[in-house]
Amino acid sequence: MKLITFAVARPEGPMVRAGVQEGDKVVDIDAAITARGGSPVAGGTPGGDSQLLTLLRGEEPALEATREAVAATLAAGEERNGDELLVRPLDSVQLLAPLPRPNSLRDYMVVREHVEGALGRVPEEWENIPSHWKANVDEVYGPDDTIPWPAYTDKLDYELEIAAVIGAAAYRVKREDAPKHIVGYTLYNDWSARDIQMREMKVGNGPGISKDFGMSLGPCIATADEFDRGAARLTARIDGEVWSSGTLGEMHFDFEEIIEWTTQEMTLRPGDLLGSGTIAKGCGIELDRWIEQGALVELEADGIGVLRNRVGRKGAGPQRVVEQPVPA
Amino acid sequence: MKLITFAVARPEGPMVRAGVQEGDKVVDIDAAITARGGSPVAGGTPGGDSQLLTLLRGEEPALEATREAVAATLAAGEERNGDELLVRPLDSVQLLAPLPRPNSLRDYMVVREHVEGALGRVPEEWENIPSHWKANVDEVYGPDDTIPWPAYTDKLDYELEIAAVIGAAAYRVKREDAPKHIVGYTLYNDWSARDIQMREMKVGNGPGISKDFGMSLGPCIATADEFDRGAARLTARIDGEVWSSGTLGEMHFDFEEIIEWTTQEMTLRPGDLLGSGTIAKGCGIELDRWIEQGALVELEADGIGVLRNRVGRKGAGPQRVVEQPVPA
Repeated sequence: MKLITFAVARPEGPMVRAGVQEGDKVVDIDAAITARGGSPVAGGTPGGDSQLLTLLRGEEPALEATREAVAATLAAGEERNGDELLVRPLDSVQLLAPLPRPNSLRDYMVVREHVEGALGRVPEEWENIPSHWKANVDEVYGPDDTIPWPAYTDKLDYELEIAAVIGAAAYRVKREDAPKHIVGYTLYNDWSARDIQMREMKVGNGPGISKDFGMSLGPCIATADEFDRGAARLTARIDGEVWSSGTLGEMHFDFEEIIEWTTQEMTLRPGDLLGSGTIAKGCGIELDRWIEQGALVELEADGIGVLRNRVGRKGAGPQRVVEQPVPA
Repeated sequence: MKLITFAVARPEGPMVRAGVQEGDKVVDIDAAITARGGSPVAGGTPGGDSQLLTLLRGEEPALEATREAVAATLAAGEERNGDELLVRPLDSVQLLAPLPRPNSLRDYMVVREHVEGALGRVPEEWENIPSHWKANVDEVYGPDDTIPWPAYTDKLDYELEIAAVIGAAAYRVKREDAPKHIVGYTLYNDWSARDIQMREMKVGNGPGISKDFGMSLGPCIATADEFDRGAARLTARIDGEVWSSGTLGEMHFDFEEIIEWTTQEMTLRPGDLLGSGTIAKGCGIELDRWIEQGALVELEADGIGVLRNRVGRKGAGPQRVVEQPVPA
């Protein structure tokens, strides 16, 4: 399944709902489930918002209930339940970041060629431990949002990454048991202000404002059964031209090893994201090519789709197509 | 005011409430406000939980309403409202972390003597930019909780820090306007597994599992008018013996400069914490003294109080006095 968050225009302002994309159709998860007599799994009420994060945080059968209700709705050709639409044309809705505020995002840097390409060397201990830095989950952008070009940078860059999404709490989970804690995968553009990042990294605390201005996620969370992590073709296009192309390829530590390492003394929770780090040649700094203000940046992954963002004018601030409600 | 979170035993399990500590008394914020005809500011219902984070995220007058209701309740000597207790003896409740899950915690490292003492050098760019790393806000411990001694470390250490608590959203806020965004201050023990931290720092992403196993916060958030940031005496005692003692002293970047720097292109939100970094000689690594399994570690600050934690046996996992409900 492709789990999505979508917005529909209403006179009183957009309604934001959790859904499943099937081809050129969007099925409203809670509407489909309640039309068949079930209880909402994404916290939705008729005419109100629902949330993928609520679904992930709920009981385990929520995903199975979603799968069954979506399949049954499409098979029966049911389009509405009273006033409520169960199925909508994809082009009638606006896709948003699947999680407007993930519970957390840890970014690991596990592709050797990117490390060598971006840093010019492989740091000591990189081979031995899956280290990470944490992203700012309060500035998430989705499909078609304009990403702010920070006033403090002349070198804005994209990063083509895959993020695994935790769907079930994990504490002291061994590698072989880790797959069932990953609900799916999404595209993650880890926007980076390279000039300030170079300065921040010298202090040793990892990146700060060089990345905190925003990440983009989407267009969907492809469930683990639908995304071929090793083979999926990943592409970055700038103003229509392919700059980066490849696969995630060999991860020096894979997501399952990362989960084992990370959960030794803490709990990973539903809605936590684990970033792969950039794929080989998946950002401008490795290519010494630099995007310009106003550029259109598209990341694409087989099985996930296209995450399309324009970057803004320097210092102009953020511009979202829809302001998403964020879980309290 | 000393804003606290406290637990009261009930047959069906502990009730967790937002309160104000006044000497040896605890005033229940929502009970005091509703007894005087106001609306709850911390989301509390009679007999149910309330949350300081809800208060911080609410409308600006919430803190003023709290101050007035607490003062009036104490002045009138009102102890109860029907079945509901407004005032309790401090020794009848268990204090918890004031925020069981802060919205975020960024830790800045702005005390020069600690940087020199812990790293043996002042990193390039440290003087020029207030860099930070982000903590794991999903593993917060409060007063009297037992901190897990991770199985992967032989060198567990404490860090004596002050954290400023954001009480009002801040975007592009100048230094001179920053004070009104700080609601108060709390003690922050930034527990660190030094052996693994040394290895993680070599990769360059900042600390990961060396700190993610837990932080402790408390025992209260002292509002900004009650905490003398520069002069307050800060102490760390291990098994009753003073190991660290001093003041926050000169911050190379103060919290107001940190807010200006951080909010250039992003929003700080209510419940975001800004750590000062460790004070001079405020941790064992600077003293080459090491705590042992089972040690009692007390941090104390004039105006805030004592944050007391025992560390557990290696690999034994966490042990909380009360499991706090966490905002969804």
